[in-house]
Amino acid sequence: VVLAPGELVSLGGPISKEVTGYDLKALIVGSEGTLGVVTDVWLRLMPAPQATSGMVAFHTDHARGCQAVADVLACGVVPGAIDFLDGRALEITRMAYPGDVPNGAGFVVVIEVDGSSDDVAEHAVTVGEAVSVEALAVHDVDVRSMWRWREGVSNAVSSVRHGKVSEDVIVPVNRLDEALGRFHELANARGLDACAWGHGGDGIVHATSIVDHTDPDQLAQAEAFTHEIFALAIDLGGAVSGEHGLGWVKRDELASQWPRAGVAAHDRVKDALDPKGLFNPGKKSSRGFGALGSVVMP
Amino acid sequence: VVLAPGELVSLGGPISKEVTGYDLKALIVGSEGTLGVVTDVWLRLMPAPQATSGMVAFHTDHARGCQAVADVLACGVVPGAIDFLDGRALEITRMAYPGDVPNGAGFVVVIEVDGSSDDVAEHAVTVGEAVSVEALAVHDVDVRSMWRWREGVSNAVSSVRHGKVSEDVIVPVNRLDEALGRFHELANARGLDACAWGHGGDGIVHATSIVDHTDPDQLAQAEAFTHEIFALAIDLGGAVSGEHGLGWVKRDELASQWPRAGVAAHDRVKDALDPKGLFNPGKKSSRGFGALGSVVMP
Repeated sequence: VVLAPGELVSLGGPISKEVTGYDLKALIVGSEGTLGVVTDVWLRLMPAPQATSGMVAFHTDHARGCQAVADVLACGVVPGAIDFLDGRALEITRMAYPGDVPNGAGFVVVIEVDGSSDDVAEHAVTVGEAVSVEALAVHDVDVRSMWRWREGVSNAVSSVRHGKVSEDVIVPVNRLDEALGRFHELANARGLDACAWGHGGDGIVHATSIVDHTDPDQLAQAEAFTHEIFALAIDLGGAVSGEHGLGWVKRDELASQWPRAGVAAHDRVKDALDPKGLFNPGKKSSRGFGALGSVVMP
Repeated sequence: VVLAPGELVSLGGPISKEVTGYDLKALIVGSEGTLGVVTDVWLRLMPAPQATSGMVAFHTDHARGCQAVADVLACGVVPGAIDFLDGRALEITRMAYPGDVPNGAGFVVVIEVDGSSDDVAEHAVTVGEAVSVEALAVHDVDVRSMWRWREGVSNAVSSVRHGKVSEDVIVPVNRLDEALGRFHELANARGLDACAWGHGGDGIVHATSIVDHTDPDQLAQAEAFTHEIFALAIDLGGAVSGEHGLGWVKRDELASQWPRAGVAAHDRVKDALDPKGLFNPGKKSSRGFGALGSVVMP
């Protein structure tokens, strides 16, 4: 990484642990270019799994589905992925699902189990039992077909009304059900068509309102809704960003989530490593910059 | 964590990812109390393995033994632990080994495989094949007996001459053999009785000279040797501390390992979060403090 005022420094390195000084490597990772310019990275690779298995479980509603996610997390096997779609997201993508969606399904849990061939066979049984309690149906699904469908969700949602306002919040996984319930209450109160999907095992929710991007009323409602979603995530002990950082669009949000003394420490670290404010100014923090504009993804 | 000037702040939290602000949690972890006072932590727990299996492989020398470690790392199975003892460490502890040490053994690889019952049986075969190439013997050993023996190494080494000077350095695992070879050359040049053991899979070497702690000549040699070991670890692309940080004893070493601009950034972060220098002064960095005294562990 090139640090101010312009020196190339190696942090970490090709060793498994580096506990000599402060973990400046971790500080740089995720700093979005605001503390220095990363020029090279070492990556630690993991062996590719010998086998994978896909599973899709349909539940009646998010309460039952989030309980299934919790049951999977408690079953003693750690799946490679535990994703979910809520009822509205399922409705939008059901035509693309590689199978028959059972009647009455209002929540889907999407699971990949990976590991050695023996393990996957055994673990799929364990996970399958955990996710099956009160399920409408549990399907074994070819992993590639499953992910092709799952990865199409975002575009499918966008195509409903040619616009969406989509967030990426995270909540403690034991509050996922509460998060989804309150999310839909807030959307209903604003008359918004909303859906959610995400990484259930991590508590990451792509909380989305489906809008006509030519309708200024809908856009205004959606923007206000976005701030309610952020407040909801924070209220539940989560964070306004689960995967994608803050960047420019969410630069105002750090101060709403972190305690005042935490933001002060954040600012002091920024000033310490970038005293002239030259590195990617305005990202991660709104100091010295204006308020947030509309967020509309076509 | 209590940050200066005295505010309690929560960082991270019970969520699986927090990518909102800088990773101040990672900055605090391992800072040895020099950036704030940690008052509570959240821990993420992993499921305990269903089964474990112990394996001890004897090789003729460190060249052959380090190749075996590399072969295990490349075999596609990730063991729970890959430890090693060099020939001198083995000699000191062979009476305590739960089995018969084969003649001519000059290096030992100690492996634990863990996971599901099926997995462990299969993985032990894979790992066993990898570690067996040119081995004198490979023993299946009860895991508890194996670790009781392995964990006794430090005390056994101490008891030889009632003193040892023991370091905790880390090297890239592909340089472990070179590290051990040069370590013994340096010890021989100073007439020191030296041995090494550690966590081979991580490249962590407990590089030790066995001394009579009443002999000032030996102690002086051992202290000079310690600095040569640090220089060796750095030269190989490793670090002066693999597990135990810097604390007070190694406070002079940061500047010898990190580039000047890295130490400057380290100091700026310290100053930013502890402007009055009140948190655990002198630890991690020798700024404003005197040189290192002798390090003798009885």
